[in-house]
Amino acid sequence: MMISRTLAADLPRHVGERTRIAGWLHRRRELKSVTFLVLRDRSGLAQVVLTEPSAIAATAGLPEETVLDVVGTVTANPQAPGGAELTEPTVTALSDPAKPPPFDLYRPAARATLPTVLDHASVALRHPKLRAPFEISAASVAGFRATLDELGFTEIQTPKIVESATESGANVFGIDYFGRPAYLAQSPQFFKQAVVGVFERVHEVGPVFRAEPHDTTRHLAQYTSLDAEFGYITDHRDVMVVLRDVIAGMVASVAARAAAAVELLDVTLPVVPQAIPQLHFAEAQELLAANSGEDPRGEPDLAPAHERWLSEWAAREHGSDFLFVTGYPMVKRPFYTHPDPARPAYSNSFDLLFRGLELVTGGQRLHRYSDYLAALAARGGNPAAYESYLSTFAHGMPPHGGFAIGLERWTARLVGASNIRETTLFPRDLNRLSP
Amino acid sequence: MMISRTLAADLPRHVGERTRIAGWLHRRRELKSVTFLVLRDRSGLAQVVLTEPSAIAATAGLPEETVLDVVGTVTANPQAPGGAELTEPTVTALSDPAKPPPFDLYRPAARATLPTVLDHASVALRHPKLRAPFEISAASVAGFRATLDELGFTEIQTPKIVESATESGANVFGIDYFGRPAYLAQSPQFFKQAVVGVFERVHEVGPVFRAEPHDTTRHLAQYTSLDAEFGYITDHRDVMVVLRDVIAGMVASVAARAAAAVELLDVTLPVVPQAIPQLHFAEAQELLAANSGEDPRGEPDLAPAHERWLSEWAAREHGSDFLFVTGYPMVKRPFYTHPDPARPAYSNSFDLLFRGLELVTGGQRLHRYSDYLAALAARGGNPAAYESYLSTFAHGMPPHGGFAIGLERWTARLVGASNIRETTLFPRDLNRLSP
Repeated sequence: MMISRTLAADLPRHVGERTRIAGWLHRRRELKSVTFLVLRDRSGLAQVVLTEPSAIAATAGLPEETVLDVVGTVTANPQAPGGAELTEPTVTALSDPAKPPPFDLYRPAARATLPTVLDHASVALRHPKLRAPFEISAASVAGFRATLDELGFTEIQTPKIVESATESGANVFGIDYFGRPAYLAQSPQFFKQAVVGVFERVHEVGPVFRAEPHDTTRHLAQYTSLDAEFGYITDHRDVMVVLRDVIAGMVASVAARAAAAVELLDVTLPVVPQAIPQLHFAEAQELLAANSGEDPRGEPDLAPAHERWLSEWAAREHGSDFLFVTGYPMVKRPFYTHPDPARPAYSNSFDLLFRGLELVTGGQRLHRYSDYLAALAARGGNPAAYESYLSTFAHGMPPHGGFAIGLERWTARLVGASNIRETTLFPRDLNRLSP
Repeated sequence: MMISRTLAADLPRHVGERTRIAGWLHRRRELKSVTFLVLRDRSGLAQVVLTEPSAIAATAGLPEETVLDVVGTVTANPQAPGGAELTEPTVTALSDPAKPPPFDLYRPAARATLPTVLDHASVALRHPKLRAPFEISAASVAGFRATLDELGFTEIQTPKIVESATESGANVFGIDYFGRPAYLAQSPQFFKQAVVGVFERVHEVGPVFRAEPHDTTRHLAQYTSLDAEFGYITDHRDVMVVLRDVIAGMVASVAARAAAAVELLDVTLPVVPQAIPQLHFAEAQELLAANSGEDPRGEPDLAPAHERWLSEWAAREHGSDFLFVTGYPMVKRPFYTHPDPARPAYSNSFDLLFRGLELVTGGQRLHRYSDYLAALAARGGNPAAYESYLSTFAHGMPPHGGFAIGLERWTARLVGASNIRETTLFPRDLNRLSP
């Protein structure tokens, strides 16, 4: 009779039983009269003990990473991973003998350069420490959705092929669409706003595309955007309240669903304050001018160095890994941004900084058709180019806003990766189009 | 003091209280001395009663779909939607007066042609009956993920821009990728298989792209694929067991999360049998030859009419809305398909038919590098074109398989939509690139 498979992590619950495990041969250790096979499956590692000379000989030629099926007796052993091992095993290979991986997967640290990892991703990411960020990433996405579901948001899917560039003509990929020109969507912005009229509250997790001409550690040609948009807000502060809950939900989900990965990578999960500290853009500039040794006043945006300084300030003064900077100047925000009614040169928008880096951008959007026409006119934009988007606002739209979180950037910051490619399974950039 | 907003569906719980609601002016009815405003929000409808001549006059000019904020006293009235209405209201417009929608949104049936709906999607889909399929769709996706999460699957994100066509050179969209040719991914097939080596069990919900040159009711240039792939299977039957649970989970999620939409559209949810009936492809052909009046034996695939006949057979003979057809001829399956070891002209693959339509394709894949080289050689394929994909299999891969469900097709079949565009927010096809 076929014995169903037991995961490595569950072995201790089967001591004394004849049990089947299956996994990759993570490591073989040959002692004088005993050979240990360490198998790796999705739950962890399991040790198999071979003492019969014929059994040792039969597995002697099997290289690491070969896939094995092992039936044996579960025996308690405090020195084995998890406190139990398989003895008296019958070993069957499920794959051909494996070609050696590009670096040793069994070593506690992954001794490989980033290009080696990326070139051989489907093998390299088997290393538990290289796989762990993606478990944290998956748990983060689950937390994002769970929080918004609870708040009555509806999940949507929007087109990734669009007739014209979403926000600007720059950095878009062109497509041959049945002989017509089309583009890959830089964001679901227009679509998610449009369906606020249908569902009130929507979220989408999906790919967005930027033809980034620069090769940096934090830009990709495709990344995963966690988008939310909702109506019936007073202003951007309502959006910040929801975003705070979403971030807290993501952290809680990582703690609950990816605990082993968090431990393996020695990640310190952030505490999300009930009220994340916030600074108005103008206040932030004053603070920088008074304390940072630089005077950025008059600049329309914050430089990365300023974001780092402000993040350190928030950690020092408020004990927070997060900081909202609100009220960015309208001149640096897209045309659909809602101005601050009291100070129209500033916007009802925000960035959320996390450990020194801009992680989320969001804010209130315009919701009146007449305001859109005026905003486009003031910027020299052509309303005809946005006709189907704009028409929605003529049909009755509530005050609304939303935000977008870059998933790979979030995970990179969380696990302390210096390059966003470490948290992307198969990155796409200026130079990389495969694997 | 600002009163926080109450949803229409929650009004009955606030009888006697001064309460604020907000929504779209769904319908105005003017009687001799009373005007009724029916507001629509994401939870349903709420009635507002105006009796003061000045209040009636103040709202007289407001067209339907204008966004309103109403503060009033919740008063029980068995004839109002939900059994309660707002009296003594103060009405404030949150939007400019709305331009009329392309058809009446307040009528119980949506009196609009499909092109009108698609051209004005962000307004047309506000009609409760046109919105309902998307609530069912969102609930289906949630059920897909919840079922697989429970089974230890990890959510992944894979590239949508690829170096070469996934499965064949036909029907791919070309991109200008920083001056190099690239393509939009037709499926995550290669990526999801590759990371079975990393995570063992993976799922992804994401867009796939097909440059379909035909204008049909069931093909789109972009659709949403619900993908799963997992290792350590015996053969395709293990995949069918998981798929059965996933479909059952999707149906259960629709029942739990989209009950109002199911009721509004009068959808009969299918019962998913513990064991879905199945026929081998050869048996299916025999059955058709003996009973359908046609003889398809010798054909390598089933025609749509045959799928319908077989579905009716399953309903009649087994009381099932679902039917597995297994063992499709290898000649019609992609090169990575695992053959049936006992009858190598047939494959370890399946289709799942749902109410007459092919809904899911899946099966066991090859997992040995040598088998891939042989399969490509037999078909005249060029291994060099698949180098990075194939290399994974040289490094030790377990027997694995998976499936892909077309989300829009699933929802269409469930709600009885005759055109897949009715279950796609903003469809993309041969002729349509906006909105």
